[in-house]
Amino acid sequence: MPYKAPIRDVQFLADKLLNAQKHYASLAGGEPLDCELRNAILEEAARFSEEVIYPLNRTGDEQGCLWNEDGVKTPDGFADAYRQYIDGGWPGLSMPTAFGGQALPKSLDFMVSECLSQANHAWAMYPGLSAGCRGTLLAHGTESLQAIYLPKLTSGAWTGTMCLTEPQCGSDLSFLRTRAETREDGSYSISGTKIFISAGEHDLSENIVHLVLARLPDAPAGTRGISLFIVPKFLPDPHGEPGVRNAVQCGSLEHKMGIHGNATCVMNFDGARGFLIGEPHRGLLAMFTFMNSARLGVALEGLAHGEIALQGALSYATEREAGRALSGTKVPARPADRLIVHPDVRRMLLTIRALTEGSRALLHSLGQLVDIELGTDAEAAAEAASFLAFYTPIAKGFMTEMGIECANIGMQVYGGHGYIREWGMEQNLRDARITTMYEGTTGIQALDLLARKVLRDQGASLEQVIVRIRADMEGMNADYAQRLSARLEEWQAITVTLFSAVSENIDELGAASVDYLMYSGYVLLGWQWGRMASVPEVREGADAFYRAKAVTARFYFDKILPRCSSLAEQMRAGADSLMALDDTDFDTLAGR
Amino acid sequence: MPYKAPIRDVQFLADKLLNAQKHYASLAGGEPLDCELRNAILEEAARFSEEVIYPLNRTGDEQGCLWNEDGVKTPDGFADAYRQYIDGGWPGLSMPTAFGGQALPKSLDFMVSECLSQANHAWAMYPGLSAGCRGTLLAHGTESLQAIYLPKLTSGAWTGTMCLTEPQCGSDLSFLRTRAETREDGSYSISGTKIFISAGEHDLSENIVHLVLARLPDAPAGTRGISLFIVPKFLPDPHGEPGVRNAVQCGSLEHKMGIHGNATCVMNFDGARGFLIGEPHRGLLAMFTFMNSARLGVALEGLAHGEIALQGALSYATEREAGRALSGTKVPARPADRLIVHPDVRRMLLTIRALTEGSRALLHSLGQLVDIELGTDAEAAAEAASFLAFYTPIAKGFMTEMGIECANIGMQVYGGHGYIREWGMEQNLRDARITTMYEGTTGIQALDLLARKVLRDQGASLEQVIVRIRADMEGMNADYAQRLSARLEEWQAITVTLFSAVSENIDELGAASVDYLMYSGYVLLGWQWGRMASVPEVREGADAFYRAKAVTARFYFDKILPRCSSLAEQMRAGADSLMALDDTDFDTLAGR
Repeated sequence: MPYKAPIRDVQFLADKLLNAQKHYASLAGGEPLDCELRNAILEEAARFSEEVIYPLNRTGDEQGCLWNEDGVKTPDGFADAYRQYIDGGWPGLSMPTAFGGQALPKSLDFMVSECLSQANHAWAMYPGLSAGCRGTLLAHGTESLQAIYLPKLTSGAWTGTMCLTEPQCGSDLSFLRTRAETREDGSYSISGTKIFISAGEHDLSENIVHLVLARLPDAPAGTRGISLFIVPKFLPDPHGEPGVRNAVQCGSLEHKMGIHGNATCVMNFDGARGFLIGEPHRGLLAMFTFMNSARLGVALEGLAHGEIALQGALSYATEREAGRALSGTKVPARPADRLIVHPDVRRMLLTIRALTEGSRALLHSLGQLVDIELGTDAEAAAEAASFLAFYTPIAKGFMTEMGIECANIGMQVYGGHGYIREWGMEQNLRDARITTMYEGTTGIQALDLLARKVLRDQGASLEQVIVRIRADMEGMNADYAQRLSARLEEWQAITVTLFSAVSENIDELGAASVDYLMYSGYVLLGWQWGRMASVPEVREGADAFYRAKAVTARFYFDKILPRCSSLAEQMRAGADSLMALDDTDFDTLAGR
Repeated sequence: MPYKAPIRDVQFLADKLLNAQKHYASLAGGEPLDCELRNAILEEAARFSEEVIYPLNRTGDEQGCLWNEDGVKTPDGFADAYRQYIDGGWPGLSMPTAFGGQALPKSLDFMVSECLSQANHAWAMYPGLSAGCRGTLLAHGTESLQAIYLPKLTSGAWTGTMCLTEPQCGSDLSFLRTRAETREDGSYSISGTKIFISAGEHDLSENIVHLVLARLPDAPAGTRGISLFIVPKFLPDPHGEPGVRNAVQCGSLEHKMGIHGNATCVMNFDGARGFLIGEPHRGLLAMFTFMNSARLGVALEGLAHGEIALQGALSYATEREAGRALSGTKVPARPADRLIVHPDVRRMLLTIRALTEGSRALLHSLGQLVDIELGTDAEAAAEAASFLAFYTPIAKGFMTEMGIECANIGMQVYGGHGYIREWGMEQNLRDARITTMYEGTTGIQALDLLARKVLRDQGASLEQVIVRIRADMEGMNADYAQRLSARLEEWQAITVTLFSAVSENIDELGAASVDYLMYSGYVLLGWQWGRMASVPEVREGADAFYRAKAVTARFYFDKILPRCSSLAEQMRAGADSLMALDDTDFDTLAGR
């Protein structure tokens, strides 16, 4: 299957839905980005994705990464592609010019990242983690650390990682064991074992910069005793070049279901020299900068797998012949009609399309919020940050679940052929499957949303979101606006019900959280589809692209938004059936 | 993860829910099966599954099958396990004594097959296809063909396959090309290429018997011109032993997402000698005997993957420690509480449990219907056949979709560890993923259900099913009975709506069919859970097993049955949004 970057849809969203020109002009600093320049950059990103890294997607999956004592060999072509990526200046796209970057809006990074993740999820994780590392250093690193590390991370000569998980703790970092001891020179000696470290060791860059969570000797127990350190593979020499090898080693690679081209490492820190980032014991706070950026990155991956499923399914359904149209033969000259004539095949295709394009609309609007959050207007930045805090767990949780659903449907459209490796649909599902687990499972995102973003401020953030949605409903197709409005009311009513249920019984929180997250996601996508349907070109149906938008909007309201009804019923049923069985009964059932 | 065959649940269903003793007594022929003997057989099947083939499940996945010009080598241990399976007399369990079988009820085969598929899906397909082959020969083969082939297939010395799919046609067999030419001796010369032939070539048995669909020279076009032939790998000599090698070869193996231990073959028939089964041009009718048996076999596979997900998730959730209970620390002496304290983890576990055990209850009741269908009471057999015709597409479509959902959730409970091969959860999903595609996709099952089983007889079969469900509602928990009753009314109302919608616009059929199938599945499982909750031991909650049944029933009605609401809304929204876009617009979107 050939891959085409969905440039037209990205541009449609930016220009017709998100008013990108005005948005760029509103951002402080230098000459605002021009949409034509943006388009040129996007086309170059598309070319890189289609021609350089997409051809390595399947071979990377087949070859995987190879470990030996000296390091990790990535699949053939990965290192060369990374050199081309550096040469193109891509790592520095949104970085400040002071560190060698091009100071373009972060929302442009979103657009580029989407293409990279579509073309080659495993490869795209190497630069993806570096981006989170740069952002964390920008926000929390001292000037001297920034001066040493950021130019190298901006050029891409060095790459980054995020070292949180340990064998005994993942979602719950409170009993993290990695130790940091003070050295005489003010640096730290880091010892411990980290697992599931993506891009922890590889042959793409001359140095690898690990951001590591560890405990100082005087650290309080729990998550309030965790500090963040930067631990480079090679300690920078006085010229800022890679110097002495540090005591950090990749002990082994995990054997995974997918993303075989990315090295998932066990990393052993054996008195490795590290440097504190941010305040002692406040490492989680700094790490949240990384995690929030990573969560949106994973949301983009969910979207990416939806796009691949869409392209694959659309290609097959418009080519493969099987059966006759229910309404009568369409092409008598052929032995059968094409799959696309069958309503159920269209249902599958439109499901992928509705979830994927709806997610894209939401994600690129979040890209603009990130621009504003990073901007100089403090009030606007605070408001954007507040919205982002609300949207991020939904984007991560919902869009990755959707990515997996779409990847599953993408296989299904192919029938038995979907199960065969050469069509690429099964790799798409295997690669997609990690996204609901890493960077916080869907369950973790859901607790974050319901407990911290919705209930903690007594629904104030939710109200702000609803006000914004209602503002967009003016001028919306009346039928869509009415259906969306009913869901907004239901969303509020459920929230009120949950607020009182949770105050009586805290388990009601965890009982409803994932359903609540999914409900929220469907409402937000309904908002996006309502908006897209209101774009004049979509209303007019000028060409196939716009007609498909109009029909997919209708499909979303007819066939996807109704999923809210079941979720609402399930939430209203409460926690009783979940908590009625004793833990000891579960033990007995498990044969313990 | 250790695997334990779910014997207790199977026995619970047989004895407390399905009144097995009375059922066995009602079957004609010989001494009725005694429940104690059945239990002894089940325990032996459990031992074989747990100790012989489960240990080969992961190694079989890692090794896969190897092709060479002389044949196919299955993974280490597969052939030896098959010898033990033959030695145990398992292939002949339900076969007539005339062919060397033990003439036990077919419902016992269901129980054994469930364990085999759980322990090793890929391995279990070899004997599974032989079973379909035996049943087809029993129903449609001439006496002389039966005399030659059935003793060998009953002992297991020979295995069978089912050769339908060709490169250009799968779901739609109307343009099948394989040719059969008449030979002077009354046999046929078969030529053509078949793909996706499970167990098409291997080193388990001394001969392989292919049932092949092909066209006679005078065949009408379409599916009414297809005949069925038996084509052995080695032609039986006058003593009935494998003689001359026939002109059928395995050209290559497919590279698949999972079930690596099963050889999925391209089979080339190059003037191979074959023998007609059934009437000329009526081969599809005969093949439907195979397919209906295979569909229930695949439904059992769906259930099997649910059970593996349940065992894996339960084991991990009762061991792994992460976070504290929302309601306060449960085990202060440990650094964290176990996963099982979290409501959302319980939601995942109970979802798997509710779908899996509900499917098991339905499937083993279908096993009894198969006994009756194969029995000597013609009236009862006809009634059973009519019910089975209705239930089979639901069982196949719904339970395989459920198996995949459960396998997905099973991974999710493990968080990032679920993605790592050693835990077995990712193989479970990869192996499960084929089940909604082979033996007719979910879409094909759904069209069969709605068009042929529901609408064609104007809902008469549906009414019979509803009458039977309503009969079971007497004595059911009043709350469950009420909720189930509301769904039965909704099911009928939707059917009436669809009947009139389809008569206006045939595309309404395909637009609603998969939602209709899923809706039907949820109702049938609600019926099963209502029945299980009514068993006296479950009402009393005598031990953890029975208490879990009671709680899972409650969970099903609270958290799963509400899924019907969204499906109903989606069906009522009709076909408009599906069919509004022209095929040519899809072409444009696909870049054609």
